[in-house]
Amino acid sequence: MVQKPLILVTNDDGIFAPGIQALAKIAAKFGDIVVVAPDKPQSGMGHAITINATLRIQKTNFHNALQEFSCTGTPVDCVKMAVNHILKKRPDLVISGINHGSNSSINVIYSGTMSAAIEGALEGTPSIGFSLCDYAMEADFSQAEKFIEKIIAQTLKNKMPKGVCLNVNIPKLNADEIKGIKVVRQAKANWVERFDERKDPYGREYYWLTGEFVNFEPESLDTDEWALSNGYISVVPTQADLTAHSALKEFNFN
Amino acid sequence: MVQKPLILVTNDDGIFAPGIQALAKIAAKFGDIVVVAPDKPQSGMGHAITINATLRIQKTNFHNALQEFSCTGTPVDCVKMAVNHILKKRPDLVISGINHGSNSSINVIYSGTMSAAIEGALEGTPSIGFSLCDYAMEADFSQAEKFIEKIIAQTLKNKMPKGVCLNVNIPKLNADEIKGIKVVRQAKANWVERFDERKDPYGREYYWLTGEFVNFEPESLDTDEWALSNGYISVVPTQADLTAHSALKEFNFN
Repeated sequence: MVQKPLILVTNDDGIFAPGIQALAKIAAKFGDIVVVAPDKPQSGMGHAITINATLRIQKTNFHNALQEFSCTGTPVDCVKMAVNHILKKRPDLVISGINHGSNSSINVIYSGTMSAAIEGALEGTPSIGFSLCDYAMEADFSQAEKFIEKIIAQTLKNKMPKGVCLNVNIPKLNADEIKGIKVVRQAKANWVERFDERKDPYGREYYWLTGEFVNFEPESLDTDEWALSNGYISVVPTQADLTAHSALKEFNFN
Repeated sequence: MVQKPLILVTNDDGIFAPGIQALAKIAAKFGDIVVVAPDKPQSGMGHAITINATLRIQKTNFHNALQEFSCTGTPVDCVKMAVNHILKKRPDLVISGINHGSNSSINVIYSGTMSAAIEGALEGTPSIGFSLCDYAMEADFSQAEKFIEKIIAQTLKNKMPKGVCLNVNIPKLNADEIKGIKVVRQAKANWVERFDERKDPYGREYYWLTGEFVNFEPESLDTDEWALSNGYISVVPTQADLTAHSALKEFNFN
């Protein structure tokens, strides 16, 4: 008997988010799924881990999974908890998402969704983060379904280079408007922030972080931003080496 | 009259940590310092930002700075708040630390200290994160002083490539035992985690994340881990492009 792949599903919008429901349903077509996801929204958590506080897990049963837990920690904590504590064997695939909103370009470093995928890759497991460029809770994830299936099927079949995971972003389009899947690099971009200053009922200032996304290279054709704004799904092979290799020779402190 | 450089000082151990006191004192020799740092320890926060909650800042006066604020957010929030809200002009340098503990190798992606430096670089400012490989609160930061001064002086003088910052790790050695400063790449390494399971007074399980650091390439001579274990200060030019460029050609989903 051929053993079914074991697929770990997580996210950063929390175990109740529609996006993880959609992803768990797709994943179940490919194997046995285990869901370990944050018990509350953890957007913008980046690669945060919980080291100054304790963690708890709680059995849940929303996703028709082999095993399922909510966790008080970050998305990265969820992957570590699943791989090192909950699962008896290494998963064949870690998938994270579907995120409610884009994780393209510079967003990858702020993204809890992608940090979970990067952590999966660090643990030695093929890993993919999926994001739909639609922040709405009622976003229509079904339009992306067949593309997500294609990417999961191919990842289960082919090998993934060691330490690499995929950052998949899906434009907010109907399935028949999506032109295809482009393998691209992360665009150089940034957020220009503005702090929205308000006063609480006691007269004390508080702030909301807001900002505007700026693509520094809108003319480049090989970036995720270009792919997304031209009707393609972007796939960026992503890894956790932050060394600026090309700059190594520019420094000398002796 | 030549204007003094404006230096933004932050960290992830919180505004009261001895490490930031040491760094602010060194920075004050080079220019006007502004301190904006978390109001509590934020270790392991990675590149987290606060988007689901509000932020507050509070004037403080511990570091003899031109301006000084504690902030309820993460290290990245502190840099964004300083650059976009508190400072009237762009700083000439962002420095973060001195972290109580190593941020070499894979630790860079979990590190709040380094995320503040990366954020500084994204904002277009030369930025450096400093870490001492000693987790103790009573660590002796004075041994590293002259090396930190050298790196700050050189960074203020020379240009930094756009988007690049420095990840500086200092071995726990006396000044006269430190052999010099090596510019190196981030070693391939990982943490093998173990969850320390305990019971609370009510019989419910909770967990502490613990782990063991594993260097996958102890024999490589061009890594930060090699430099540190051989008595050198490691300097890794660091940037926020997570694209696995060498793997781009290995994927095709059409």
